[in-house]
This record gives sequence, C-alpha cells and structure tokens, in this order.
Amino acid sequence: MGLVVQKYGGSSVADAEGIKRVARRIVDTKKNGHQVVVVVSAMGDTTDELIDLAEQVSPIPAGREFDMLLTAGERISMALLAMAIKNLGHEAQSFTGSQAGVITDSVHNKARIIDVTPGRIRTALDEGNIAIVAGFQGVSQDKKDITTLGRGGSDTTAVALAAALDAEVCEIYTDVDGVFTADPRVVKKARKMDWIAFEDMLELASSGSKVLLHRCVEYARRYNIPIHVRSSFSGLPGTWVSNERPQGLPPQVALRLAPHIASQGDRPVEQAIISGVSHDTSEAKITVVGVPDKPGEAATIFRAVADAEINIDMIVQNVSAAATALTDISFTLPKAEGHKAMEALTRAQSVIGFDSLRYDDQIGKISLVGAGMKTNPGVTATFFEALSNAGVNIELISTSEIRISVVTRADDVNPAVQAVHSAFGLDSDSDEAVVYGGTGR
Amino acid sequence: MGLVVQKYGGSSVADAEGIKRVARRIVDTKKNGHQVVVVVSAMGDTTDELIDLAEQVSPIPAGREFDMLLTAGERISMALLAMAIKNLGHEAQSFTGSQAGVITDSVHNKARIIDVTPGRIRTALDEGNIAIVAGFQGVSQDKKDITTLGRGGSDTTAVALAAALDAEVCEIYTDVDGVFTADPRVVKKARKMDWIAFEDMLELASSGSKVLLHRCVEYARRYNIPIHVRSSFSGLPGTWVSNERPQGLPPQVALRLAPHIASQGDRPVEQAIISGVSHDTSEAKITVVGVPDKPGEAATIFRAVADAEINIDMIVQNVSAAATALTDISFTLPKAEGHKAMEALTRAQSVIGFDSLRYDDQIGKISLVGAGMKTNPGVTATFFEALSNAGVNIELISTSEIRISVVTRADDVNPAVQAVHSAFGLDSDSDEAVVYGGTGR
Repeated sequence: MGLVVQKYGGSSVADAEGIKRVARRIVDTKKNGHQVVVVVSAMGDTTDELIDLAEQVSPIPAGREFDMLLTAGERISMALLAMAIKNLGHEAQSFTGSQAGVITDSVHNKARIIDVTPGRIRTALDEGNIAIVAGFQGVSQDKKDITTLGRGGSDTTAVALAAALDAEVCEIYTDVDGVFTADPRVVKKARKMDWIAFEDMLELASSGSKVLLHRCVEYARRYNIPIHVRSSFSGLPGTWVSNERPQGLPPQVALRLAPHIASQGDRPVEQAIISGVSHDTSEAKITVVGVPDKPGEAATIFRAVADAEINIDMIVQNVSAAATALTDISFTLPKAEGHKAMEALTRAQSVIGFDSLRYDDQIGKISLVGAGMKTNPGVTATFFEALSNAGVNIELISTSEIRISVVTRADDVNPAVQAVHSAFGLDSDSDEAVVYGGTGR
Repeated sequence: MGLVVQKYGGSSVADAEGIKRVARRIVDTKKNGHQVVVVVSAMGDTTDELIDLAEQVSPIPAGREFDMLLTAGERISMALLAMAIKNLGHEAQSFTGSQAGVITDSVHNKARIIDVTPGRIRTALDEGNIAIVAGFQGVSQDKKDITTLGRGGSDTTAVALAAALDAEVCEIYTDVDGVFTADPRVVKKARKMDWIAFEDMLELASSGSKVLLHRCVEYARRYNIPIHVRSSFSGLPGTWVSNERPQGLPPQVALRLAPHIASQGDRPVEQAIISGVSHDTSEAKITVVGVPDKPGEAATIFRAVADAEINIDMIVQNVSAAATALTDISFTLPKAEGHKAMEALTRAQSVIGFDSLRYDDQIGKISLVGAGMKTNPGVTATFFEALSNAGVNIELISTSEIRISVVTRADDVNPAVQAVHSAFGLDSDSDEAVVYGGTGR
C-alpha cells in the first residue's frame, strides 16, 4: 500500500456537509492502509466572492496582492477539512502551498512550479498524519511572495506533489464521473472511458475538454504519475490517465477495439484508435487580410501578437494568388484576448503592411483525437464525410499526429460533434468502436 | 517625520467602503512624510463566520487547524487594503504575520510573541512602500506553524511591530474616540482623556476597560512605545497612552489637576490623580467555604485552579474565627471559566479538605484608578462614601498601588460607577478633577 494523493475541487467542499463527506472518504483511504496527501481547492464560490471584493476596492487589482487575497480561500477549506478528519479520530495537519514546499516563479496570478520540496509533508506522513495541502498556490523562489498557479492550479499542485512524493496515483475528484468520449451535455450517448493515454488526454485538453487541464496532464506525463479522474459524489471508478493501461482494468475490448484485434494489445501501432471528440467555443478567429507574400511576414505578425502576451491556437495561411502576391493569414485565440490582439496588430499595421483585419467570435472548433490517425487516411475521410452529411461547413483545418481539428460556425458545433461521435462508433449503443488501418476497412 | 504604525480593527474595514476610507487615511499619513506600517484585523464578522464554519465540521476544533482557519480573515482584509492603496496611486505590499517576522511560542489560539524580525517590512518601507501586516497572527519558532495571538492580538501585533521598527507612535484606530474616564454608555458625563499614563491604563484594562487590552499596554510600556487611541471615523485626536504627557498636548489643567498645583508638573508625586472609573460584569465569584486555617491550604486551592489553566482575578481570605480554625477563601474569575474551576475544585475537595463551594455569577466589579492613591487615605474614604450614599453594598475589596476595586451585586454596578465618577469630579460639567494629598483636603 503506497502513498495516494487526492485532490478535491471546490464543488466537493462547497459547504460543511461536503467537507464532512470528503473527510469520510479520505479516512476510508487511510484505513485501507495508504498514506494520504490531500490537495483541496477553495470552497464553492469563495474565490468568486473574493474576486468580487477585490473589484469593489480596485478596478485593476495588483498581482501580488490579488494572489495574497485568493489564497485565503484554500486556507479556509484546508483547515476545515483537517478539523473534520480529526473529528473522525484521525490525525491531520494542513499546510499552505509555501509550507508544502511548492516553489514557483514570480509571475503572479499564473505562476509556474519550478520545484517541490515537501519535507514537512513527508514528516507529517511519517508521524501518521493525513496531510492536507492548499491547492493553487505556492511561494516564489526569489522574493518569497505568495503566488497562485492560475486556472487548474489545484490539479497541478496535486500532480506535482504526487511526483515529488513518488505517489502511486494522483486521484482527481470532481463532479463528473470521469473523461468521456465527448461532452455528455452535447452528446447524450457519450461513453465514460476507463483509461486514456497521456498523449490523447493532452490533445483532448488542448482542444476543449475541461475535465483536466493540459498543464496538469503534461506534468503527470513528464513524471509518469498515473491520474485517476473520478467523482467525489458517486464513489465509482473513473478514468485512468497514464502511459499504459493499468493492469487491474478489464481488457480493453468492445468499447475501444474491434474484437479481432483485441489480442494484439492495448495500442496496436498500425491501427487508429479513436479516444474521443472534443469541442471548444471559447475562441475567436482573426484574419490578417492582404499580407505581402514574402519571407518574414508571418514572423512579424506573430511577434506582434506574442509581445502582447497572447496565446494563439491554430494558424492557417492560404496559398497566395500569384497575380497579387498577397496572402491571408488566419489564427484562433481565446475570445478574452481578442481585443488586445486586434490592438497589437493595428499598431503594427504599417510595419507589417497588411490591408485589413477581420475579427470573428462566432466560431467553434471540433477535434477528433486518437492514435495512429496520420497514417490512416480513412480517419480523415470519415471525419469530413460525417461533417458533410451533417451539413457543416469547414472554415479552417489543422492536424497533428493524433488529432484533427476544424473550425466551423459556432451554431454548427453541437450537430458536428454528434455526427462525428456517431460516425466513429463511439455512441454508447454501438457494439464497438471503429478501428481503421491494418484491417483494411 | 518618522515611522508610524497604524492599527485598524475589524469594524473599520467591515466592507469595501470602509477599506477605501481607511486607505485614504493611510495615504494621507504617507503624504505627510511618514513611513507607514499598517496592522489590520479581519473584516467585520469574518472571524465569527469562520468560527461558525469550524463548529459545523467539528465540535472541538483543533488548535493548530483553528489558527490556520482564522488567519484567512486577515489575509483577505490586508490584501484588499493593499489593493485599495495602490488604486490611490501609492505603493503597498501586504505581509502575513509570518512574513512580517512575528515569531511566537507554540500555544495555539493564544500564542505569545517571543521575537519580531521585521526585515521584509523594513525593506518594503525602504523601497517606498506602505507595509500592510496581518494582525493577530504569527509563526511558531520551533515548528514553523501558523499561530494566533488570542484576544486583542492585532493591537499587540501593532505595538510589537512599532517596538521592533522603533516607530515614533503606534496609532490604534477603533470605533470610539479614545479612552474615557468611565464607560460612556454607563456614565453620560464621562470625559475623553487626552493622555493617560501606562500604569493607569494597565489598571483600567485589567479592571474592565475594553478600549485596550492589558497585554498590549504592557508591551508598549516595556518598550516605551507611545500609543494613540483614536477613532477611524471622526479623525479627531484621541487619547495618548505613554510614560510622559506628550509635549504637543495642551497643559493638563482643569480636567485633571486643581489649578494651584498645575505648575508642579504632570504628575506631582504627593498628589493622587484620578484617571478613571472602570467596571466589569464578566466575572463570577467562587467561595471555598470551611478551609482549614493552616499553611499551604491556599496554595493547594490555587494550584488546583491553575492546573486547569484558569486565570483568577481578585483573591480574598477572611480572618478565621479562632473557635473553628476554619476560614473562607473567595476569588473572582471569568464567568466562561467558572464551570471548569468548580469541577477542578470538586475533584480536589478531599485533598484540600474544605466544606463546600459557592458559585455566584451575579456580581460586578467597580475600580477606581489613579496615581498616589495608597498614600492618600482621602481617596479610599471618598470612594466608600460615594458607594454608601448610592446604597451599594460591598462584598469584596482589593487594592493596588494605583487602584481600588470592589465587588458588588451586578445590579448595583451602574449606579456605583456613576456615583464614584461624580464624587471624584470627573463628570464633564465639573470645573476640575478632585486632587487629594498634599493640599490637605
């Protein structure tokens, strides 16, 4: 029986009852013989309430002070959780991110973890305690200031501690049952996966799946920490995210592989195995129209965007019409950063020398994720056929080794996801998933 | 222009408006050329809300976790206050007790400060910042755990920082105008003092005055830090508490000294100068009846009480009747600890060998505080005459160098305070305070 890191989100500890329920689950894990480290988020709406207070006193709250403020939320939930555990007759101690040794850089509001030195956690465990750690927060290496890790920070704290403590698993408790083949709110027949590989989860996360953030999965993959995403309400097994399919799971047949190749193992190199369909309507598209088609233009454009600290997603450049020697470059980015990007490009117009800018925030992105896609043309064909049959027009296309994404009108996203999910046999009433490749289909 | 430490209580920062008002006051002080360190309590009811949450998850919250929980309150207020100041165009940084170098012992919920190492505060000041420090909290020297200082902890934080930073004054902002000659809710004609000596303030604090706690005044006296108690709402000068009457104040005539001795200085050795009348109805009285009148009995009784960690106040032992060789010992203690004390004594009954215990929580204490009292019998006589004229019966009497206290029925407290305040010429429509002593009256 090894060490288990468990992470509970804000909805799991939203009130005293929730905290007591979580405390019982933690104690059960401890009783099963595990050492337990728990990472906890702020209770329910606490963070939003604190942000609201901050906006009342200052329109643009300062980063350092904003982090100091927000970290009060986890301090409350972790202390209450430790009390609730002690009330069940088990020893527990709570630790701030700083006390737990979560060392970060100094970028307030979105700090990155640069080291984890969990000496106090180790000592607490060795003394028989359950250790409760504040998620989402750390302390900066140079200035010793309190920092927060930004979106999904608590998941990242959990994985980072699991890595530093050499845990056997990092359990992420949430309000859904696991990772699904598509968003169950859009696709009623979406299935819960019992396992997904790190690579596929990374692509799902970066293309719209919100169960786990890219950054947390990336961290887990780098240190090879298996993640188990599960519900804090149901107690059912959830979805494992790891390099290899865990041994305890039932063989991966029916749902994921056609029966005749199941014997070849979990991930046959020659077959495409579809993990799921994700979608994202949080992005906007900017098109830079009439860019001179000469070397260095794209670099100038994206340097201007990068200097404004904007993360871009897809980039597409059309072939230029020979007659004009002008081309159009489109890219997608978070809607929230659209205004800033348009300003940055407008400022750089004379340097870049483009004609005009177009801004479109009524778009959506649909992505299909699965291994072996690139070497299986049938996947791409089936994907586009499904979209075509659903009457969905495609505006941009982008592909990677294990993902194919298209941008469509926002209104088309839901029917597109449903059509693709169905076309690849992922619906829960299908007998088996479709497998392309070596089988010749 | 030196360094000023300002402390704002929870009622001053109860909401966003309060925080912005306090921020303006702080910025005004900075603009006047001072370096400013601000100690802040949790917003309004925050602490009570956190205690309520703790009780929901655990009937007896653990000390260490309880401290972790409560300190979230100051974290919120200090970060918001720093933001509000920055929003006024001035630099501010907030610091937890630990970051500010408030080092304590390990007694959770009522830790004592054992050292203050404000290196980060000094640096922040030198860089032109206003430093905002969480009151009420510190970090334990041995285990590096978060501690809280118990009642009045924020005042003590402020005085301790003022001492460590060699501040020229520690301003305690509160919701009253200063220290009064009696509780203005009981004595309508109570006067605000413009100055009171440390010793007198200590006696007032330990005999029921709630403006400043004994512990904070004691700390200030030890390091000779002048305290200025004033209202955060009115902006008027308040009451100075210090060794010597500050030079900037108007001469201390009329109100405090008869004119013919004013020329002798602030505190003529031979005269009694009455500071004020305090009262306290938070205590109960326990009488141990029929104690064998032999050496060691009192020690046994109070060891039993001390072992239960109960603070006692007055102790009175009557002379024993020779015939029985038995005596009664009475003492007062906080009502909240009455039950625990009765249990401890009952357990020790066979060892001590007393007859019975009497518990009385319908008592009140009235105290007169002023220098030179003991050598001026007229003070005591006037005091008892005033009580007698008001028809107040006295149950216990206790005196110190500069204080005389009596215990009466709780119902008699208000008329007793009014009578004494009036008899010593402290009422605001009196021409002058009464001075006993060398003048022969």
